Amino acid sequence: MKILKSIPYDELEIGRTATFSKTLTEEDLVLFARTSGDVNPVHLDEEFAKGTPFKTRIAHGMWSAGLISAALATVLPGPGTIYLGQNLSFRRPVLLGDALTVKLTVSGKQDEKKWVTIDTEVFNQDDKLVVKGDATVMAPAKSGEVTAPDLPKVTVG
Amino acid sequence: MKILKSIPYDELEIGRTATFSKTLTEEDLVLFARTSGDVNPVHLDEEFAKGTPFKTRIAHGMWSAGLISAALATVLPGPGTIYLGQNLSFRRPVLLGDALTVKLTVSGKQDEKKWVTIDTEVFNQDDKLVVKGDATVMAPAKSGEVTAPDLPKVTVG
Repeated sequence: MKILKSIPYDELEIGRTATFSKTLTEEDLVLFARTSGDVNPVHLDEEFAKGTPFKTRIAHGMWSAGLISAALATVLPGPGTIYLGQNLSFRRPVLLGDALTVKLTVSGKQDEKKWVTIDTEVFNQDDKLVVKGDATVMAPAKSGEVTAPDLPKVTVG
Repeated sequence: MKILKSIPYDELEIGRTATFSKTLTEEDLVLFARTSGDVNPVHLDEEFAKGTPFKTRIAHGMWSAGLISAALATVLPGPGTIYLGQNLSFRRPVLLGDALTVKLTVSGKQDEKKWVTIDTEVFNQDDKLVVKGDATVMAPAKSGEVTAPDLPKVTVG
């Protein structure tokens, strides 16, 4: 059982950082295509992908953005966070087996609305920046802990 | 078999529009959580969600952004598009059963780099704006058609 902690607005000092990591699998590609409807063959068809500038299948850019969402919702600030906005710049392709790490850094606070801006960078296993951007969130109202929900079993193929 | 058409840079006149629609299912929520690692209980645990401002489970904001990715990759400009950036403002919650429509509108072109900017709006079945933003893409080099890949069978539960 994984425990997720919420960090409230008052504890989110500027410069605070957190990370979240995940490795891209074949299953991730297929499930992202299924849930989003994005069946672009560059993500799914190796023969097609050979004819692209990338020469092999790559992740959906928005899959890497999903990891940013996961980092915000499960680590910093954690459950109760309301996602208001995100800017994304896709810098490098992400290949099967790449181990990505999202790095979050609190960059600004707006006391009136309790909004927090967070720099969001995603690096691969070679420390190369693959996605850069920033998020705007409303932080959780109070600190707390919640058990991460169990997901139903998912079978592919 | 679904055919996906690529629209090259020269045919992307300013003001051209396209749409892409998808309805949020329980399976979509679970698969997005699985592929991204975003197990925020507001998306997965109805009891937890009752205690939030939304009173019920909502979609991951980045799931709706995935629909924008699908619209760009499969409709306008279609396969061969390289996704460079995306700005997102999450305006309203998306609930189970909501039927979303992504509306794309070509808003700018940069001849030197062949980059195209596209306004990206996502509406629900009541024509309420749920996500607003804009995308920057490199358009496909030439027109063409490709068969949408078949996805492997996915079973949940």
